[in-house]
Amino acid sequence: MELKEALVQLDQLQRKMYAYQVASSSLYLDATTVAPRDTAEGRGVALGILAGERHKLFSAPQAGELLDGLWEQRDELDHAVRRQVEELRRSYAQLTRIPADEYMEYAMLTNEADSVWHRAKEENNFELFRPVLEKLVAFNIKFAGYYDASKAPYDALLNEYERGVDMEYLDGFFATLRQRIVPLLRAIGEKEQPDDAFLRRCYPVDAQRKFSDYLMEVLGLDRAHCTIGETEHPFTLEFNNKDVRITTHYHKDNVDFSMYSVIHEGGHAKYELGIADQLQYTCLAGGVSMGVHESQSRFYENLIGRSLPFIQAIFPKMKEFFPEQLADVTAEQFYRAVNKAQPSLIRTEADELTYCLHVMVRYEIEKQLIGGTLAVKDVPETWNRLYKEYLGVDVPDDKRGCLQDSHWSGGSFGYFPSYALGSAYGAQMLRNMEQDMDVWGPVSRGDLSQVSAWLGEKVHRHGGLMEPADVVKNACGDFDPTVYADYLEKKYSALYGL
Amino acid sequence: MELKEALVQLDQLQRKMYAYQVASSSLYLDATTVAPRDTAEGRGVALGILAGERHKLFSAPQAGELLDGLWEQRDELDHAVRRQVEELRRSYAQLTRIPADEYMEYAMLTNEADSVWHRAKEENNFELFRPVLEKLVAFNIKFAGYYDASKAPYDALLNEYERGVDMEYLDGFFATLRQRIVPLLRAIGEKEQPDDAFLRRCYPVDAQRKFSDYLMEVLGLDRAHCTIGETEHPFTLEFNNKDVRITTHYHKDNVDFSMYSVIHEGGHAKYELGIADQLQYTCLAGGVSMGVHESQSRFYENLIGRSLPFIQAIFPKMKEFFPEQLADVTAEQFYRAVNKAQPSLIRTEADELTYCLHVMVRYEIEKQLIGGTLAVKDVPETWNRLYKEYLGVDVPDDKRGCLQDSHWSGGSFGYFPSYALGSAYGAQMLRNMEQDMDVWGPVSRGDLSQVSAWLGEKVHRHGGLMEPADVVKNACGDFDPTVYADYLEKKYSALYGL
Repeated sequence: MELKEALVQLDQLQRKMYAYQVASSSLYLDATTVAPRDTAEGRGVALGILAGERHKLFSAPQAGELLDGLWEQRDELDHAVRRQVEELRRSYAQLTRIPADEYMEYAMLTNEADSVWHRAKEENNFELFRPVLEKLVAFNIKFAGYYDASKAPYDALLNEYERGVDMEYLDGFFATLRQRIVPLLRAIGEKEQPDDAFLRRCYPVDAQRKFSDYLMEVLGLDRAHCTIGETEHPFTLEFNNKDVRITTHYHKDNVDFSMYSVIHEGGHAKYELGIADQLQYTCLAGGVSMGVHESQSRFYENLIGRSLPFIQAIFPKMKEFFPEQLADVTAEQFYRAVNKAQPSLIRTEADELTYCLHVMVRYEIEKQLIGGTLAVKDVPETWNRLYKEYLGVDVPDDKRGCLQDSHWSGGSFGYFPSYALGSAYGAQMLRNMEQDMDVWGPVSRGDLSQVSAWLGEKVHRHGGLMEPADVVKNACGDFDPTVYADYLEKKYSALYGL
Repeated sequence: MELKEALVQLDQLQRKMYAYQVASSSLYLDATTVAPRDTAEGRGVALGILAGERHKLFSAPQAGELLDGLWEQRDELDHAVRRQVEELRRSYAQLTRIPADEYMEYAMLTNEADSVWHRAKEENNFELFRPVLEKLVAFNIKFAGYYDASKAPYDALLNEYERGVDMEYLDGFFATLRQRIVPLLRAIGEKEQPDDAFLRRCYPVDAQRKFSDYLMEVLGLDRAHCTIGETEHPFTLEFNNKDVRITTHYHKDNVDFSMYSVIHEGGHAKYELGIADQLQYTCLAGGVSMGVHESQSRFYENLIGRSLPFIQAIFPKMKEFFPEQLADVTAEQFYRAVNKAQPSLIRTEADELTYCLHVMVRYEIEKQLIGGTLAVKDVPETWNRLYKEYLGVDVPDDKRGCLQDSHWSGGSFGYFPSYALGSAYGAQMLRNMEQDMDVWGPVSRGDLSQVSAWLGEKVHRHGGLMEPADVVKNACGDFDPTVYADYLEKKYSALYGL
């Protein structure tokens, strides 16, 4: 095939993939926001067909031939197109290495697993989930071999979520965190906790909505390209770099939940909105990896949003939205309250300091499950032991223990570490940013434009054009988990007077 | 191909068409409700590709061969499947008779026409729209020949919107209406008009929202399968018979606009929700025609919603939502106000009596345009002359004249008559319903369940299983426009004491 014709076909293939993605995303957004309650069946029929068509399109031999043909002429391709071909070939190889019948069987299994997990969690019944989890683990071990038989199975899975990351990398990372955070947390346990009762006063939803609008303005999110909706669980959904939606959830008696959800999802949105126009409608038009995406959301949420200069900057305005609730509260008191560190049971409710310990528990368990050294039936016991060891808490039941997350029932093994990596990447970005410019002067005036510009230049605009590891290197320098540990130690020592 | 295998393929083909339809509808719903303002481009790319894939799927020779093969074995098919094959063959033939390049050119033209029309209307500049309208008319004359060369062009177009309806049928229909309504309207013009100023008091949007919820309850719309949203222009969107959405628009100084929008769209929704389960995910799973669909929306809106028994039934509750606004108003006064009949310029704001006259103007103009006896440049003059003749009003400008509707710019010629036909069908359904049961006793108690059951049995459940004309016959008996004229004459003579 002529190169010119092949490039046209490459463009068409990617635009079709984009269209199927947009269609599914739109249905998902609808389902989680305004769809009537009992409408899952018809939507499921449509989603199944769209997923099938997308799979057929991309696993067709023509697609493989097109990509191989382009790869042979890779020296003729410009950089962005070459990267597209490289990425697509990798995805194509992965998809087509899984036998079609196993792919179908697995899709049915994860579909079933989701509802079984929901029921098991509701009924606090691990035994119900156990046989499904066993099948999921077995499938993932097998798939790991399809992805890369030269690697240990868990390394092959990790590589799918954060390319270039393996157990060696993570063992070092988590060992550093464990050595530094566990003693820090013990020391904090002996100190007096700040008063955070005022966070639980009554904050009317309407006032919280206006506060969200204000936060989006502070974040520099253009409402002509990014809206905010309301869902059970907050999320970010991107259609393209001109159309991103974030959602939050308002709790009347909890002002910081939505506040930090908006800032967190806003960080994801900034990333997607900042990707270069030239990458649109290609496979490179999205955040490069889970870890890098989390680095952006957590950067805005924790490094900026939970900093004293930022809180001091927005607090006068915040008092206008909640004049009675915050009448007797200072910015400094608010800062201390939203940075209260204490061991807890639920990952999604954990504070900045303990969050990584929750992830670490999951990492250890996944490593052993996929490595074949831990049986599924022993997961609850191991979970509870590790929570005691890392966080010092007793897990009262599996509902608040190993059944709390949806990831495994969705078939994701190797995903959790990205959350912790993102936090660590963020801390290194902050260090580098501080070396490049005055970060806190503008932030203390509520001006995030320079922070955004730095992240835009170092991370956002590249989308998937660079390898994840190169984006990290570009923005963080060499990965060094002590930077993150130092950041945490400094922040929490000051907060708790250690 | 074996019959069994062919039936599986038929099912798959229809489910794929359903999935593409669902995807486009979801994007449309999103665009009109929550999407950020400047996001049309990326959505347009996705919609274009989805439409192209759908077109490719359905115009492929394999689809034609499958349908022909099934048609040859039609004696083996059960009734519903046979109807599906019949309908799909008709659509396939129509689609494939239009040469691909003309189809593409026309899609681009209507896309362009939409924005040109918007601008022309805004600037009150018919000359801007004229060249585009000329092309649209020329295309439609050509397409009419593809649809059915044995028919006069306008008859071929009418047949696409309301199968079985032609100019002879409509000439008789509209002549009857003209002869009866025009003198009636003149007589009303000499009578005193009811006071309707209270409809324009301040009705807070929040109270109107609660009122909408109540109306949906009265209509018997199950919120687990039907939600109400807010858009610039009200509409109904159906995904399947378990998932329908209606929208309304709230005007603070206009209580009846949203009220009758909800009841109107609610009528469309009742139809879609009432279609039999066995037709789901087939081409028969939808209202059978535009005219029959309008018969249902207008039945609920006008024949029920604007009747005295209905208003008396809901008025006490309505006063709870708007206690101050309606403090000095009786149900009878409200009934008279929402049935005020007077000539006006804008079709979508017209009352029940004059609505058909607006449609008639458009019918006369379309007939001549497609028949080749009226030049596009003469449309404004003809429009204004007919408005004077039928409605007795002087059209001050084209913005409030021949540029007011979006239909022609969307490429729809032959669509308008369905609106008037729907009203007439509704009146005949009411007459038959009254012969079958006590309609007004339950309605006067706010109970629409029996009305809904009658329509469900006679119209809704059949979906596209019968021909439009057979549905009309089933629910109305032989079409006789004097029934509708009698209904209007009786209602308005009483209202105005003629």
